[in-house]
Amino acid sequence: MNAIHVPTGSPYDVCIGPGLLSELGPSVRALYPKAVRVLLVTDSTVEPLFAAPAADSLRAAGLAADTYVLPSGEASKTAERLVELLNFAAAHGLTRSDVFVALGGGMTGDITGLAAAVYMRGLPYIQVPTTLLAAVDSSVGGKTAVDLPAGKNLMGAFWQPGLVLCDTDLLSTLPEGVFLSGCAEVIKYAVLFDSALFDRLDRDGPAFDREAVITQCVGFKRDVVAEDERDTGGRRALLNLGHTLGHAVEACSGFALSHGQSVAVGMAVVSRAAAQAGICGQEDARRVCGLLERFGLPTATDIPMDRLMEKMLSDKKRSGNKVSVIVPERIGQCSVRPMGPDELRQFMKAGL
Amino acid sequence: MNAIHVPTGSPYDVCIGPGLLSELGPSVRALYPKAVRVLLVTDSTVEPLFAAPAADSLRAAGLAADTYVLPSGEASKTAERLVELLNFAAAHGLTRSDVFVALGGGMTGDITGLAAAVYMRGLPYIQVPTTLLAAVDSSVGGKTAVDLPAGKNLMGAFWQPGLVLCDTDLLSTLPEGVFLSGCAEVIKYAVLFDSALFDRLDRDGPAFDREAVITQCVGFKRDVVAEDERDTGGRRALLNLGHTLGHAVEACSGFALSHGQSVAVGMAVVSRAAAQAGICGQEDARRVCGLLERFGLPTATDIPMDRLMEKMLSDKKRSGNKVSVIVPERIGQCSVRPMGPDELRQFMKAGL
Repeated sequence: MNAIHVPTGSPYDVCIGPGLLSELGPSVRALYPKAVRVLLVTDSTVEPLFAAPAADSLRAAGLAADTYVLPSGEASKTAERLVELLNFAAAHGLTRSDVFVALGGGMTGDITGLAAAVYMRGLPYIQVPTTLLAAVDSSVGGKTAVDLPAGKNLMGAFWQPGLVLCDTDLLSTLPEGVFLSGCAEVIKYAVLFDSALFDRLDRDGPAFDREAVITQCVGFKRDVVAEDERDTGGRRALLNLGHTLGHAVEACSGFALSHGQSVAVGMAVVSRAAAQAGICGQEDARRVCGLLERFGLPTATDIPMDRLMEKMLSDKKRSGNKVSVIVPERIGQCSVRPMGPDELRQFMKAGL
Repeated sequence: MNAIHVPTGSPYDVCIGPGLLSELGPSVRALYPKAVRVLLVTDSTVEPLFAAPAADSLRAAGLAADTYVLPSGEASKTAERLVELLNFAAAHGLTRSDVFVALGGGMTGDITGLAAAVYMRGLPYIQVPTTLLAAVDSSVGGKTAVDLPAGKNLMGAFWQPGLVLCDTDLLSTLPEGVFLSGCAEVIKYAVLFDSALFDRLDRDGPAFDREAVITQCVGFKRDVVAEDERDTGGRRALLNLGHTLGHAVEACSGFALSHGQSVAVGMAVVSRAAAQAGICGQEDARRVCGLLERFGLPTATDIPMDRLMEKMLSDKKRSGNKVSVIVPERIGQCSVRPMGPDELRQFMKAGL
């Protein structure tokens, strides 16, 4: 097992390795000795696989465990569902000394984290990611949210988990498409921070060593989160590589494309656009697109530019009139570039 | 004008005095130089009185101002209304550099503060209280919330305002009932912390010097908030004097009784109960009830004990199986007593 310490205002550990799900109960006991009940939140895909062993581990540790099951898919990440979850927590008598556990992918982690942030003005929660995407990205860093009709993640909070238990055994049960989708975020870290990781992924393909690579990715995420916990325009903004366009692609596709697939399109487009603008070399852009394709990820979209622009301009990352775009300079190094609407359109268009 | 500095993690000033509403625009400009838009949130009672001068002050300072009007009354403090407010903010293009302003009483401040806490994971907000209750209590301290069907304030966040502008001129337009209701919270501070303030209120009645007394009350609130920002069982719990029963009375009355009236009943009941239990003297209990009556506030309820118990036990202040009750020892000094359900029933029953 590897452990990464995240030194945020409220610090916590990310534990990565096989067999960790059975440590859930003992971990809650050790971290929250006053806890009586745990509300286990999961989704309809994960529930039949892992909810019973998770609840068993909690009960064996002397905790009462109730389970709330979200319908699978991003469409569940709504304010209405959040309120239903909060009402469920209240109806089941969850108090301020109790704990939420998110057992699932990014959607489950995001909505559970927000529920924990706002239920009785803040309860602790533990992330147990069951997808690669959640393991390397959304379960670490305390960004919680639900979507509003006007855009993704518009309602949320910064609320750090008390622990992240990443059981690599759970990831082995993922359908291949879900796993490859998560690889988009792994490739993102390589493009952002580490050309050696990029070479490793290029060499090993989807068979890469999961425990080692997840640990490396969580380490990168820890570094930027520790430096810029509330995402106030510092290095944390870099993690949005591929996301400005990606969120627009995801929404415009009606969520037919997964988050990872959408981010892959976003990374491919900004890489080509950066090459067109002379910010990075053509060869680097070709290598980024090539690696995404090697992982079965899309690198283009036929959604019209006008619809994507409209979505991007209502995206929460804009500050005043500018949208911050993360642009590769070379593999392993990117920069944040604020662009006005016209510049953004011209830049993105060159990469589509 | 008096100013009280609140040294929370994110510190701010509470300014108290006449004519401060016209300082709203210049204050936003000075505190948030990057702000472009302000979302002014108010209610249907306050809107015709003060929304126009507030918006004028903002526009004169070069800010775009949109107004969202909540229907007056505690019934608006719901998760559904919060989501509508967030959607309104998104539809009007509020970004991360912009600002919310709460212009109203406790309900408006609570829901606006929560909207600011969760919109795009946190925007600044300014409190402009228009009721005495909001001025001395809810606008200071960063407790934001909406109600859930299972209970009051079950969904919320700790999110400190960037500034509180308490214009004492606004309070002069209050209907007498609203003003007297707010006096319950003023009397609460006197019972909790200051027998001289109690004597002053006893001497002056509702004609007390508003600027001076509000400043004194905000000073008390600042002291407990600074010591226990997140209400983790420290001195801040004292502020719940009269509230454990008060919240139950308010809910069971279907909000026919105001918050202040309900808290008055709560204070009267715990004072009599404390006297019965020999915790405080009979004379102190009589003086508390006498002062509440002098301010036209109720000191008893005919809601059955069983209904009140049920509400109190689902109240968020319970921790595990205990409910923390604030009990007067004498005028100017109270203590926190955790009680199990049986003890709570017996204690409260003696004071009903």
